[in-house]
Amino acid sequence: MSSIGIKDVAAIAGVSITTVSRALRNPGRVSKATRERVLAAVSEAGYTPNKLGVSLRTAKSGNIVAIIPDVGDSFNFGVIRAIEKAANNHGYSVLLGDTHGSQERERAYAEMVRSRHADGVILFSQHLPFDIDPQQPAAQQMPPLVNSCEPVAVPGIPTVTIDNVAAAREAVDHLIGYGHRNISVITGDMESPSSQDRLLGFRQAMQAAGLAINERHVIHGAYTVENGQASTNQLLLRRDRPSAIFCFSDEIALGCYSSLQEHGFRVPADMSVMGFDDIRYARHFSPPLTTVAQPVEAIGTYCVELLLKVMNGETLEKTRYILPHELVVRGSTRQL
Amino acid sequence: MSSIGIKDVAAIAGVSITTVSRALRNPGRVSKATRERVLAAVSEAGYTPNKLGVSLRTAKSGNIVAIIPDVGDSFNFGVIRAIEKAANNHGYSVLLGDTHGSQERERAYAEMVRSRHADGVILFSQHLPFDIDPQQPAAQQMPPLVNSCEPVAVPGIPTVTIDNVAAAREAVDHLIGYGHRNISVITGDMESPSSQDRLLGFRQAMQAAGLAINERHVIHGAYTVENGQASTNQLLLRRDRPSAIFCFSDEIALGCYSSLQEHGFRVPADMSVMGFDDIRYARHFSPPLTTVAQPVEAIGTYCVELLLKVMNGETLEKTRYILPHELVVRGSTRQL
Repeated sequence: MSSIGIKDVAAIAGVSITTVSRALRNPGRVSKATRERVLAAVSEAGYTPNKLGVSLRTAKSGNIVAIIPDVGDSFNFGVIRAIEKAANNHGYSVLLGDTHGSQERERAYAEMVRSRHADGVILFSQHLPFDIDPQQPAAQQMPPLVNSCEPVAVPGIPTVTIDNVAAAREAVDHLIGYGHRNISVITGDMESPSSQDRLLGFRQAMQAAGLAINERHVIHGAYTVENGQASTNQLLLRRDRPSAIFCFSDEIALGCYSSLQEHGFRVPADMSVMGFDDIRYARHFSPPLTTVAQPVEAIGTYCVELLLKVMNGETLEKTRYILPHELVVRGSTRQL
Repeated sequence: MSSIGIKDVAAIAGVSITTVSRALRNPGRVSKATRERVLAAVSEAGYTPNKLGVSLRTAKSGNIVAIIPDVGDSFNFGVIRAIEKAANNHGYSVLLGDTHGSQERERAYAEMVRSRHADGVILFSQHLPFDIDPQQPAAQQMPPLVNSCEPVAVPGIPTVTIDNVAAAREAVDHLIGYGHRNISVITGDMESPSSQDRLLGFRQAMQAAGLAINERHVIHGAYTVENGQASTNQLLLRRDRPSAIFCFSDEIALGCYSSLQEHGFRVPADMSVMGFDDIRYARHFSPPLTTVAQPVEAIGTYCVELLLKVMNGETLEKTRYILPHELVVRGSTRQL
């Protein structure tokens, strides 16, 4: 007798071979009832689908690779979780590519698609990990890729992000509305488009309110707790201290809290602090952090759904998807 | 002319075909100089190694799958990061399997090994995702698997963990040493071996000090911020309030802080709080959290190195690897 194959499973389940294949490789595409019928038949037949074999015939690995500079960051992490969930609903698995900020590692992970180890890339970085001719349409020169949060400066690449300029403007407007005039910012990495956009939003809001920007109060930093602490130390040394600090991420704000507490400042009585991201811990800071919420769940889901469309050769309606943000006012900012 | 192959790359690089293959599939195993020579030759030859093809011949996917009940948990997350780093050093990628606590999803991820989509499993759960005969040696009935932090109750499975009983005992001894007599605990999920062991350590320490345990002060919870908050609310309602709360994770402690702050209690003046894990944010809580540090980096590295040994068919010296923990005293506990 020949070995048990997909045909036997189809016969037992009473469905077509295509349906069995789809149920096994792309369970999100079949009904729950069908999926259960197929799984029961697989179990009855004692069939072990050989994913690599299936993959080679269809040129699909069933994997998506997420390329991220720092997986440890709580914001990135929320997006990854949403990506994992959405991918899984469509029968895909997520390969985790933490690059620790190295462009060499970004490229190594991106190569997994060319070598058919993954079917598509979700990129959390402004560095495109492929060499392309800027004169030609980007999409035709690359494996399937969707860019998340930190837009690559090449047109035509599908990008999912929020409007960081508008979001920062709203954050600063909130502080100005509370009577703050002397406002500092602690930025993320100034290489990153998100940080550049947030700084632009800050400048626009200050200018619109007719407020001067003290350039010594604009601290160029990095998206880390440690930077938040060191940069706040730097600000507290100044003779003309600000009354409010706008941190470009909640992790920066957490470091800012540490510095303020260490030096005897109370939040918000002595200093208002504004964050950005609304990571899951932000509501549990002491005091709970006022911040700009990014829709992590929607960002992750959009990234996966757009990537699947690109992988299926569909044409996207547009390449830039701007999702809504939301100002969340909690206890770390106060009316002057 | 035939298509460009691994032979051409080997000829250009002046190394053997085996070395090229190793450099591409397992870069950690060759010197940096060799790796660079091979990569330059790959680039010169315009060769795209077909990982799926290579994999099928060698029956290796180059992937490790990490099965985790909740990837969003900061402690798990630190371990995942270490796993990703260690795996990458050995030329492996990590597939992220977030099960959201579902045993069905645990099994689906574990099946990736049988279907050759992954070469081995690192399991963060006490549920073994394979059916085995308990009368027979476990290792012979399963694909390569290493168990992390939450030991499976089956002998013979390689496990990397800390001594949770001893660690909890030390945590409680610290509180007793500070003069606390009325000590509460908020546990994690009581299904989890780590939570059972920490509760045993608590009981041992109280008993050794001749202190009575008020069973109404032992709140059975879950490893989440939300549980920490709700359980602390419950404790604060009691007429006989504790003077110290031992939280079985730092996330629980963060929720505990939220509840205490909401109800006007100062930490540590009105209540001492002890955590567990030493997640990266713990030192930035207000006040910085006294906790038990788990060696996340070492746990992740050990898991990968043991799994590679199992995958290579090597015999392990032992199956239970207990790594050292450390009590970290910060500002959230005080002498009564």
